[in-house]
Amino acid sequence: MPTLLIVGAGPGDPDLITMKGLRAIRTANVILYDALVSPELIKEASNGCKLVYVGKRRAHKEFSQTEINQLLVFYAERYSRVVRLKGGDPFVFGRGHEEMEYAIKNGVTVDVIPGISSSYSALSCAGIPLTIRGVNESFWIVTGTVSSGRISEDLNKAAKTGATIIVLMGLSHLDEIANLISTARGKNEPMAVIQQATLPTQKVVVGTATTIYQNAMNENIISPAIIVIGKVVDLRLVVEPNPEIFEKENARRN
Amino acid sequence: MPTLLIVGAGPGDPDLITMKGLRAIRTANVILYDALVSPELIKEASNGCKLVYVGKRRAHKEFSQTEINQLLVFYAERYSRVVRLKGGDPFVFGRGHEEMEYAIKNGVTVDVIPGISSSYSALSCAGIPLTIRGVNESFWIVTGTVSSGRISEDLNKAAKTGATIIVLMGLSHLDEIANLISTARGKNEPMAVIQQATLPTQKVVVGTATTIYQNAMNENIISPAIIVIGKVVDLRLVVEPNPEIFEKENARRN
Repeated sequence: MPTLLIVGAGPGDPDLITMKGLRAIRTANVILYDALVSPELIKEASNGCKLVYVGKRRAHKEFSQTEINQLLVFYAERYSRVVRLKGGDPFVFGRGHEEMEYAIKNGVTVDVIPGISSSYSALSCAGIPLTIRGVNESFWIVTGTVSSGRISEDLNKAAKTGATIIVLMGLSHLDEIANLISTARGKNEPMAVIQQATLPTQKVVVGTATTIYQNAMNENIISPAIIVIGKVVDLRLVVEPNPEIFEKENARRN
Repeated sequence: MPTLLIVGAGPGDPDLITMKGLRAIRTANVILYDALVSPELIKEASNGCKLVYVGKRRAHKEFSQTEINQLLVFYAERYSRVVRLKGGDPFVFGRGHEEMEYAIKNGVTVDVIPGISSSYSALSCAGIPLTIRGVNESFWIVTGTVSSGRISEDLNKAAKTGATIIVLMGLSHLDEIANLISTARGKNEPMAVIQQATLPTQKVVVGTATTIYQNAMNENIISPAIIVIGKVVDLRLVVEPNPEIFEKENARRN
């Protein structure tokens, strides 16, 4: 029976994959994976497993989404037990639903194994709360870039509320976003940028709508990074990831 | 050195804990845990580990948040390696930040291990996309109940946008929420309720702002459940969780 598991690899640290996701990797016949998936996780595949890179960050030609959909079905029909492994969670601006829909329409049995999304975990790992009791009771997750290449109209709407706003894939529009926030919420609205959350290369830059762009430039922030907007940024605690707290023994290889 | 790890247990299915979270449980000296944590995960604690239940769903008196904060520091000072284990992600309306702040102020070293939050994973596990390309580019996560016991004002604002809205802990206000949505978005606005996502007791009920309350009543929906509002509900695919896809072998005991 052709079967496909759509699996989230988590935000960066390979140990933040779920137990269920790791089991899927270990027992898959084929894994189709993206650029943001940790190489450590790919190493967990069995010896006979076919590894198919379909990401977008290498020199060779990219696959289109249509081609990826077709490849998923192609492999599921021939090898069953196909894992589609994507960074973060496959359904947070990740086309997971489109892939699922195409596979189901083509007779493939599909199941989902969610992953930790950076959209919220990056904040707690950087010591920033998502909401503040008594100040706001919600957070709004927006993609920074839409297919037109412009800023999402939803960001304009979000800026006019008191919600904590989290922008994914918006780094290349940071200057424009900061200006928009300055107009809607004032020039002192707190903002932060979190680069490569949960990885050793994690960086956290804080500032205001006026200063955040320059601060991020000064720190040479690169993608993937998320943008955080709201008073929550002022409540940041400095969390020092401390590998000594618990043994370094690698539970993945227990 | 007094150390505290704040760990997310995931949305329900115990296999949706992260590798890092599981290692924390296995090597902890003390675990303070909540009602929504799976008993399967508690079984992973070592023989010498002290298990302290601080949840709210049993007959005995509840601990206040202040008491929980004090207990975390008390145990961290005496036993080091303390795990605070909470359902879902501890920072999504979960007071994780308050606990972290109190512990740090009292000299405890704190680190964070995020968990899968039902706020987004419940949707994909029920076959509902978070956003629709070309229709909206954001989703807004709101808590259904604020400390006053009333509906959050943020829900009113969210209703007036095109964002997908996800309401956590709002089941007891479902009737009122549906009325609010009917006024803001029209009586045919699609809505869904997802009970106990990722557990064998998962139930998905769909409807509109007009019908969802009665539909949920008819299906005897109970907490924990999340409410989904928006056109994404109409794109639902039926995902049949299929335990046969991959071996049933329990990777947690590898």
